[in-house]
Amino acid sequence: MASIKPRKRVLSGMRPTGKLHLGNYVGALENWVRMQDEYECFFCIVDWHALTTDYADTSHVKENSVEVMFDWLAAGLDPQKSVIFIQSHVPAHAELHLLLSMITPLGWLERVPTYKEQRENIKDKDLGTYGFLGYPVLQAADILAYKADVVPVGEDQVAHIELTREIARRFNGFYCEVFPEPQSLLTPAAKLPGTDGRKMSKSYGNTILLTDPEPLVRQKLKTMVTDPARVRRSDPGNPDVCPVGDLHKLFSRKETMAKVDEGCRSAGIGCIECKSWAADALVQILNPIQERRKKFEDNPRLAWDILEDGTKRAKAAAAETMKDVRAAMGMSLELN
Amino acid sequence: MASIKPRKRVLSGMRPTGKLHLGNYVGALENWVRMQDEYECFFCIVDWHALTTDYADTSHVKENSVEVMFDWLAAGLDPQKSVIFIQSHVPAHAELHLLLSMITPLGWLERVPTYKEQRENIKDKDLGTYGFLGYPVLQAADILAYKADVVPVGEDQVAHIELTREIARRFNGFYCEVFPEPQSLLTPAAKLPGTDGRKMSKSYGNTILLTDPEPLVRQKLKTMVTDPARVRRSDPGNPDVCPVGDLHKLFSRKETMAKVDEGCRSAGIGCIECKSWAADALVQILNPIQERRKKFEDNPRLAWDILEDGTKRAKAAAAETMKDVRAAMGMSLELN
Repeated sequence: MASIKPRKRVLSGMRPTGKLHLGNYVGALENWVRMQDEYECFFCIVDWHALTTDYADTSHVKENSVEVMFDWLAAGLDPQKSVIFIQSHVPAHAELHLLLSMITPLGWLERVPTYKEQRENIKDKDLGTYGFLGYPVLQAADILAYKADVVPVGEDQVAHIELTREIARRFNGFYCEVFPEPQSLLTPAAKLPGTDGRKMSKSYGNTILLTDPEPLVRQKLKTMVTDPARVRRSDPGNPDVCPVGDLHKLFSRKETMAKVDEGCRSAGIGCIECKSWAADALVQILNPIQERRKKFEDNPRLAWDILEDGTKRAKAAAAETMKDVRAAMGMSLELN
Repeated sequence: MASIKPRKRVLSGMRPTGKLHLGNYVGALENWVRMQDEYECFFCIVDWHALTTDYADTSHVKENSVEVMFDWLAAGLDPQKSVIFIQSHVPAHAELHLLLSMITPLGWLERVPTYKEQRENIKDKDLGTYGFLGYPVLQAADILAYKADVVPVGEDQVAHIELTREIARRFNGFYCEVFPEPQSLLTPAAKLPGTDGRKMSKSYGNTILLTDPEPLVRQKLKTMVTDPARVRRSDPGNPDVCPVGDLHKLFSRKETMAKVDEGCRSAGIGCIECKSWAADALVQILNPIQERRKKFEDNPRLAWDILEDGTKRAKAAAAETMKDVRAAMGMSLELN
């Protein structure tokens, strides 16, 4: 009898940044939606992580978590396939974080590339806290609490997953083999420019939100920067150096792309026309997302139920791991 | 109508070091037993703290916790009056530790006097971990999880309680007034020498355990060091510089003390006689303790029940606090 190989387990998370934008979609969410069929997925809104950099004003964390949740469901994360939950609703993350903190050398944390980098570059926030230093330990706990095999990440997160593997190895070495060593699955970094041509990012104020209604999308596209060399309508342009060209490559059909390429390089079409085609493509992506979102906005109870169910399933999975962890450390809750 | 002022709340803890000795009794436990009538007491075996310095071998943590538990009950901690529990059984400590870690400046922790001191002086253990640095944050969480008003401590712990107060103030300032600022209650530091004349301490191997049977107590007393100036039986001695004299001062009745003082200074009694009187006094203290312990050893279910009940009460109290904490930070678990 052939045994059925269990699906590998995936853990991924997003901070509660509020309404998501196309960059979040292309950079992670779209990929997650696809992964749901191949993997057993746990998707976690990591609200405790938001505190590592923004502890002083936490008034929007919950509201932002709910927005992310809506956008996840809208984008196609499917509670029938995946476990969707909020980190702070599963206290096992905190317990595992504490236990892993005991075996994590300070030097490992001080040497994390993003740690030094962010402490040097981010000047408007206080990052000199114990919690910010421990952020990769919390991330390790998030992953290891579910014994995840695979973690889809961007380039900048690979070092963190490597640290998670090192912590897992150290734990397994001291006590006994509890954790698999999770592998990074690099999300192909699609180049998604914002309306100003820089990387689309909330902090640049250049985003197109998944919730932006069609007129706003068209409006934003109209003011989007283009190939700077194409000053006049009669100048030929180059879609390969044009942010709008990048949008076409990601979202337009082949035929449209061909028309853009030919028309731009020959000055046969103007930027206004080209942008309206890009807007058409975006609207086609966003329409079904917004329709699904509306269903949940009209009846938020649906979303709460999904979250409650996800929390229950996440808690159960984490509880199994914690049982193994406590047993391995000789600290099980049973006394006799 | 006169309102009844609620009793102030006390939180105190001990690491699971295994069987307790007379130094633990005189330095803390005896005092705790007395406090039970005046305060609402929470007594916690802080097994997670044991991991901050001894993470590599945790095989004895549970067994040691159980020994401490037996000794507590034997010494007179009373589950009718106090809440007795094990830290790791109340996960709220870990959650609060994580939340407080977010607002605790690294510099505060690096400047804790015991941190530098221990990292410099303890060479046989690796103290370069994230968890060891965060030890005072965990202690703050232990205390603040119960909104304790008073923490009985030894001199060396005063700086930690001050840090807890600072963390509480910072939390109250950022969010809203959740935590009272706990006060240190200095335990009068009784001078309790071990059998070698140095401070009684497990690490010196000079202890008299609360569980030592009478013959062993008498044996240990026989080999105990005395006033070094009293070399011969005929030399007069000085009980004020004699470790056995210290025992008499703590445990003997006035009449015995008078006999010791006169007899030693006049060389009227020998050290052997004097030691046997000290042993008499110790045995009188230890007898009822050991009788109570036997009751629990014969029927450990009694102890587990006490612990289960204590855990339940501790969890309930901590849950109330965590509700306030989450609400203050805008992260309550309710979604709509």
